[in-house]
Amino acid sequence: MHTQLNPVGNMSLLSQIEVDQLQKSASSELYNLYRNCSLAVLNAGSHTDDAEAIYEKYRDFEIQVLRRERGVKLDLINPPVDAFVDGKIIFGIREHLSAVMRDILFINKSYKDIDVHASPDQVTHVVFDILRNANAILPETDASLITCWGGHSINQIEYKYTKEVGYHLGLRGFNICTGCGPGAMKGPMKGGTIGHAKQRNTQGRYIGLTEPSIIAAEPPNPIVNELVIMPDIEKRLEAFVRLSHGIIIFPGGAGTAEELLYILGIMLNEKNQAQKLPIILTGPTESADYFTEIDTFIGATLGKKAQDLYQIIIDDAETVAQEMKKGLAEVIEYRKQTGDSYHFNWSLEIESQFQHPFEPTHENMAALKLHNDMETAQLAASLRRVFSGIVAGNVKSPGIKAIRENGPFIISGESGMMSLMDNLLASFVEQQRMKLPGSAYVPCYEIAQESP
Amino acid sequence: MHTQLNPVGNMSLLSQIEVDQLQKSASSELYNLYRNCSLAVLNAGSHTDDAEAIYEKYRDFEIQVLRRERGVKLDLINPPVDAFVDGKIIFGIREHLSAVMRDILFINKSYKDIDVHASPDQVTHVVFDILRNANAILPETDASLITCWGGHSINQIEYKYTKEVGYHLGLRGFNICTGCGPGAMKGPMKGGTIGHAKQRNTQGRYIGLTEPSIIAAEPPNPIVNELVIMPDIEKRLEAFVRLSHGIIIFPGGAGTAEELLYILGIMLNEKNQAQKLPIILTGPTESADYFTEIDTFIGATLGKKAQDLYQIIIDDAETVAQEMKKGLAEVIEYRKQTGDSYHFNWSLEIESQFQHPFEPTHENMAALKLHNDMETAQLAASLRRVFSGIVAGNVKSPGIKAIRENGPFIISGESGMMSLMDNLLASFVEQQRMKLPGSAYVPCYEIAQESP
Amino acid sequence: MHTQLNPVGNMSLLSQIEVDQLQKSASSELYNLYRNCSLAVLNAGSHTDDAEAIYEKYRDFEIQVLRRERGVKLDLINPPVDAFVDGKIIFGIREHLSAVMRDILFINKSYKDIDVHASPDQVTHVVFDILRNANAILPETDASLITCWGGHSINQIEYKYTKEVGYHLGLRGFNICTGCGPGAMKGPMKGGTIGHAKQRNTQGRYIGLTEPSIIAAEPPNPIVNELVIMPDIEKRLEAFVRLSHGIIIFPGGAGTAEELLYILGIMLNEKNQAQKLPIILTGPTESADYFTEIDTFIGATLGKKAQDLYQIIIDDAETVAQEMKKGLAEVIEYRKQTGDSYHFNWSLEIESQFQHPFEPTHENMAALKLHNDMETAQLAASLRRVFSGIVAGNVKSPGIKAIRENGPFIISGESGMMSLMDNLLASFVEQQRMKLPGSAYVPCYEIAQESP
Amino acid sequence: MHTQLNPVGNMSLLSQIEVDQLQKSASSELYNLYRNCSLAVLNAGSHTDDAEAIYEKYRDFEIQVLRRERGVKLDLINPPVDAFVDGKIIFGIREHLSAVMRDILFINKSYKDIDVHASPDQVTHVVFDILRNANAILPETDASLITCWGGHSINQIEYKYTKEVGYHLGLRGFNICTGCGPGAMKGPMKGGTIGHAKQRNTQGRYIGLTEPSIIAAEPPNPIVNELVIMPDIEKRLEAFVRLSHGIIIFPGGAGTAEELLYILGIMLNEKNQAQKLPIILTGPTESADYFTEIDTFIGATLGKKAQDLYQIIIDDAETVAQEMKKGLAEVIEYRKQTGDSYHFNWSLEIESQFQHPFEPTHENMAALKLHNDMETAQLAASLRRVFSGIVAGNVKSPGIKAIRENGPFIISGESGMMSLMDNLLASFVEQQRMKLPGSAYVPCYEIAQESP
Repeated sequence: MHTQLNPVGNMSLLSQIEVDQLQKSASSELYNLYRNCSLAVLNAGSHTDDAEAIYEKYRDFEIQVLRRERGVKLDLINPPVDAFVDGKIIFGIREHLSAVMRDILFINKSYKDIDVHASPDQVTHVVFDILRNANAILPETDASLITCWGGHSINQIEYKYTKEVGYHLGLRGFNICTGCGPGAMKGPMKGGTIGHAKQRNTQGRYIGLTEPSIIAAEPPNPIVNELVIMPDIEKRLEAFVRLSHGIIIFPGGAGTAEELLYILGIMLNEKNQAQKLPIILTGPTESADYFTEIDTFIGATLGKKAQDLYQIIIDDAETVAQEMKKGLAEVIEYRKQTGDSYHFNWSLEIESQFQHPFEPTHENMAALKLHNDMETAQLAASLRRVFSGIVAGNVKSPGIKAIRENGPFIISGESGMMSLMDNLLASFVEQQRMKLPGSAYVPCYEIAQESP
Repeated sequence: MHTQLNPVGNMSLLSQIEVDQLQKSASSELYNLYRNCSLAVLNAGSHTDDAEAIYEKYRDFEIQVLRRERGVKLDLINPPVDAFVDGKIIFGIREHLSAVMRDILFINKSYKDIDVHASPDQVTHVVFDILRNANAILPETDASLITCWGGHSINQIEYKYTKEVGYHLGLRGFNICTGCGPGAMKGPMKGGTIGHAKQRNTQGRYIGLTEPSIIAAEPPNPIVNELVIMPDIEKRLEAFVRLSHGIIIFPGGAGTAEELLYILGIMLNEKNQAQKLPIILTGPTESADYFTEIDTFIGATLGKKAQDLYQIIIDDAETVAQEMKKGLAEVIEYRKQTGDSYHFNWSLEIESQFQHPFEPTHENMAALKLHNDMETAQLAASLRRVFSGIVAGNVKSPGIKAIRENGPFIISGESGMMSLMDNLLASFVEQQRMKLPGSAYVPCYEIAQESP
Repeated sequence: MHTQLNPVGNMSLLSQIEVDQLQKSASSELYNLYRNCSLAVLNAGSHTDDAEAIYEKYRDFEIQVLRRERGVKLDLINPPVDAFVDGKIIFGIREHLSAVMRDILFINKSYKDIDVHASPDQVTHVVFDILRNANAILPETDASLITCWGGHSINQIEYKYTKEVGYHLGLRGFNICTGCGPGAMKGPMKGGTIGHAKQRNTQGRYIGLTEPSIIAAEPPNPIVNELVIMPDIEKRLEAFVRLSHGIIIFPGGAGTAEELLYILGIMLNEKNQAQKLPIILTGPTESADYFTEIDTFIGATLGKKAQDLYQIIIDDAETVAQEMKKGLAEVIEYRKQTGDSYHFNWSLEIESQFQHPFEPTHENMAALKLHNDMETAQLAASLRRVFSGIVAGNVKSPGIKAIRENGPFIISGESGMMSLMDNLLASFVEQQRMKLPGSAYVPCYEIAQESP
Repeated sequence: MHTQLNPVGNMSLLSQIEVDQLQKSASSELYNLYRNCSLAVLNAGSHTDDAEAIYEKYRDFEIQVLRRERGVKLDLINPPVDAFVDGKIIFGIREHLSAVMRDILFINKSYKDIDVHASPDQVTHVVFDILRNANAILPETDASLITCWGGHSINQIEYKYTKEVGYHLGLRGFNICTGCGPGAMKGPMKGGTIGHAKQRNTQGRYIGLTEPSIIAAEPPNPIVNELVIMPDIEKRLEAFVRLSHGIIIFPGGAGTAEELLYILGIMLNEKNQAQKLPIILTGPTESADYFTEIDTFIGATLGKKAQDLYQIIIDDAETVAQEMKKGLAEVIEYRKQTGDSYHFNWSLEIESQFQHPFEPTHENMAALKLHNDMETAQLAASLRRVFSGIVAGNVKSPGIKAIRENGPFIISGESGMMSLMDNLLASFVEQQRMKLPGSAYVPCYEIAQESP
């Protein structure tokens, strides 16, 4: 099968010089990344988190950028047939393909090498510019975006609960932003559509924020109607927190722990003391223990000050939505007072250690410092990196490969903290939060307790 | 609880004289009907087909029409709380409440007594006028409306299949019209929303066409975004066939059989020989037998000519949608040639016997003629009435009451035909198509084979 | 030339029975009225107030209503060519033609015979129903409609001033409603377009309210984008005052005097004492005398109480618009307090004598009572009729004919009042306000002072 | 007077780093340019072409770019009061002010120094990027843009005629692009609004393309609803021809001659032989001589091949519009065949000599080569520069200053050509096309015939 199509959105309006550059990028070392992300969105809605399986299944898939007098055309060879209806590509997938081109070939290129010495302001500018270029910041609309974090692999009871929360958010006019894939990233969106439909709201936004290394494992679910691919996980996290007006955390595995530690690390920054950002951890009754474990871990590592930054609400979807509504009013009031934008939280302080990509090599993982006498935000940053590495080892291609070659990451630190972490991770494994059920999970890490 | 609200749509723009008339209607013998229909829509999304249970649960519910200088206001006393979000009525329910007022108090009133001597043209004018007044005919939009008929009580496999069909219809831009309730009336709409979402179609129409005696048993499901209450079942059936561009019939019980016999009776009219209207009977593999039974019954009673009017497609949702797309092209071509409207099939001939309400009293049921030597369309009309009566006996308040008081309806006719019917109805009972599972079904009919 | 076209708006969605009725109406005694009004709008933008000349020029013009399966089609024979661009009718004229069909054939028919015994409420219902059917009442929009009255025959300085007032109204978001023709009915609309354009307001409404006997003499100017033809002058006047949120009166002739007396007569009603409705008489410096004369006449006949109902603002277009803005705030506040609609003033009391058509025969004109000891509102009503008759004698076909046959109307009353009236009318003649310049004006009236 | 306002459009969505850069730009040597352009648009609709007079009148006007957490704010000190309605800035002027910021401070900055060695492709990319950034290229809309060139100082008969042409263009759905000021740049837009209004087209585009050195002398007229300030006259001319689908040239002075020579020079390029671009020279009967003179001059200098590129239509506005409609069909057909964009003519070849800014110093003017034996397109390019220089000497600040200091430009060339030019320029002077009437025109040039 062989088909051509015109991109949409701002990728339909390019100059000849820009098209030349796109073509050049598409045939550079970016090609594989570009091809794989395109494949991921063509495969949207599939039910696997095994990126390698997808790549294997469609190993003869190719994508080419063609230059036409009027702009650019995409040439797809052997694309997944489910992306087409009677030979015509599904419009939403055409939008996602255009987003991949826009984010991987067009804009990320400009920001490829900016990181190493960039100031926080410059990194934030990059995050803003990518989101703006993706038309994800809509100053004319009401402020109402909730980020939902949680596992891509959750059980049916938890999934149903995430839908219920989404439903109550949708009824109250909230839009939803998640990390793009299945599980807790799909449920709130699905519930949101019913809430929006009942309120006759046809403008509902379901934003999927992803990054190149995760998109194949967690391709956009069918509800996602805005897709943005940030250059790396750190900018993706920054995009989540600056864009949204509240954060809900459902049960999840290492990735969810990473996200929680990220936002706590930032909110613990003294300069953010006055910031308003409602954070709610929530799940069904059956998941109450999960939150007890997490909360205990946070208490034992980051302390009560960190625990005070969030509420835990068990099995009460409606209250979650109502608390977010209350929180929203405070967020808006705060933005008004500080003269900040309602759609991008400029005044939130994010330090360099949360912005610069952490590469989870065996060496870097082993070098992470994890001590109780560290400054709290610093400790949160290190812990965040631990979990980030575990996610990589679990589901990201380079991580899986590294583990295959060199064995598990060694994570070492103060012995008490290491015990806590060992328990927490063990419970994730036991609860099948690390990978989609069906495969036996082989840990990609080893906890090494430092001798005192 | 006590709350007031303004109606929307054309009910927000009434003259003082019209408001006076509404008030008068609302406190007349129409009150109960108006109250019960309002209660049904306030209860939208509930999962019972037991109208009496609902009425019992909310027996202290009241609704009043208040006159204000600027028009009308609704006063609700003790309404179901699920219709409200943080004290504010859900917008879609406010629309439905306005539709009830519009159709029960405002327009139906004009047409209350028109029936007995009305010509077919006059009845069709009534059907058109009610639909137009409900803003259900949109000449500026693409012709693309599919009516889906089928049981409100179907099993999970069938329900999933109706969703799949709806999904493939939605992907192809079709809008969906059903009878408003759960089961086969909800599945295609739910699937349709996903198809529309993937194509980024935010204008999807999910039309629920109902009538006063069925609305409480089959209240609008949460997807319905346009509700029209026709005065009686015959005008409701006429509305379905004139509005839509194709008809899909899923497994169902007596009501579904009634619908199939109605459309066959009309299409068998010689004057409709050239008409284009795709009719597809479809279900999952597990329901193949059901269609064999129905098809056999049709063949044995109405003959091959009737069987030629429909296709049976088993377990192939995509083909169903593709066939509808092909059929649509023919429908449009035919309307173009005949100068007919794309949004209301004026040229379809519907005879009086299909237009005038049939009252399913024990007497009328017993008097129905059912012989093989009858003119085919006439026989279809009589058979339609048999099933219509059984629906009434099963789920409609007055029917249930009549059965309670006078025992089952007696249905008599030619012995061969009666055997066929007995078998068909028995299979409906066995397959739990008569009532939602949970209650044991007690037949409301008895088949009496005429002595030869 | 011969052309066919489909009507637009609600005339594009008719039942077969309605089309039959339209056809019947169109070939009844209504035909001439229908044809002439259609001709008037086809001739929109022409620069003559001589209806007979237009009728003569296009005496071979014909219009027919054709029945099609899908609804109605219009067949035009020998229409004015300026209504077409490269063979295709100008869209705005197609809208106006549809409005003529809607108002003359479709809705007015229902209200043809309602008048004689109708209560004030019933007449108001008719006015409302016609406006609603014409989609002229838009409850979702901001309240902002200003009625501008004034002569169709005004001089260049006055015309430029009306444009300036319209400009300042447009800048402030006001929409404009006038009587449809040239002069003071066009200027404010033309100025309004510039004001709206500068504010990037593309939703500007330019409503022309007319009636069958005046439309040919004062066809819709090119700016009118909503046309409504009320059945008679009294309902037209009621439509003006109930629809709008303020009234501006520019210099004019007998018709303008009629309008001023109408609104004063109503506002003098005790029941309207609390009503808010800003009324401003305004013109350029050069027209100051005109307003002095009018004001003196009002003072001498209706007294100070009547004078207090309006402001006179000379040569200050911006202040006029600013005063209207202030007035609007009071109007809205009043409507809010009384629970009245923002888009149709239900609570304004209009008595029967202002609602029932006055037929300006020689007999009726001679019978009008004009005495100082009459109740003030009653006197205003009589005076209104005097000027109404003079308009008919000046520009309306039947009036012109009656004068040609029977000589001038005789107007008699108290001698002081008759002197005042004689002077006022003489000044209208002198200032060429009775007819467009170019023809010598022959008065259609004679003032007969009653012997004391 | 002192007021603050938020910019609109893409200037309402800036990063903190971008705001910093804007602030820096605004207080750099760009300040005067930025301030003067802002003043020009605040003064939109004024009736003078004397930029210095405007600058003098508002010499205490200041504008400042303020940094707020959420973006940028403008601070205006002593702005012209006519830009405000009851203390609030007119929305269209707010848009124009934002356009000035966008084009002068934001985007032009990036392209300030690109010119000298830029390839034609790079210059075209700049033109495209500026237009795209201004949202002036709308790929979703119908192709229908006509550029109207002609004098800012034309007589009443000519002005009326330009309105008539605009009216007939508007009736046919054309949008209009001009150079922004009064006269032939306003008339077609004004006429267009009436044509659009009659067709109920509320999306009419009235694009003003200007450049920093001319905007004060020819500020946007009140109809302009899209303003783009190109960096220099050459990019402005390129924007005109790539954006539009046809070109109409009304009578004008040196600027109009420059425009005609520009487009002829380009269309004479062999690579553009197959290009479709209708060019019509038109005016009222009274201006027929003007076109004879121009046509003769073109014939004598560039030859018949150049004359064949345009039609001259005298006193027939409707035919002009009809020819454009015909031409449009050919343009679209050609773009389709070549795969070119319908909204930006990529395939038109424009050589460097038409792209690089010509600085009209006394030295450069004197150095221009004007010989009959030159290559035709080359000669057109040189002639274009002559007229460009004269425009500068007539109305642009630096040009006026240079003339004041150093006397008139000396233009020399082949004697026959110089005679022709002398006559042509003399006729412009005589017809008052060089400056708005009211001031005596003192030529800024001297024709020096080269000795053979």
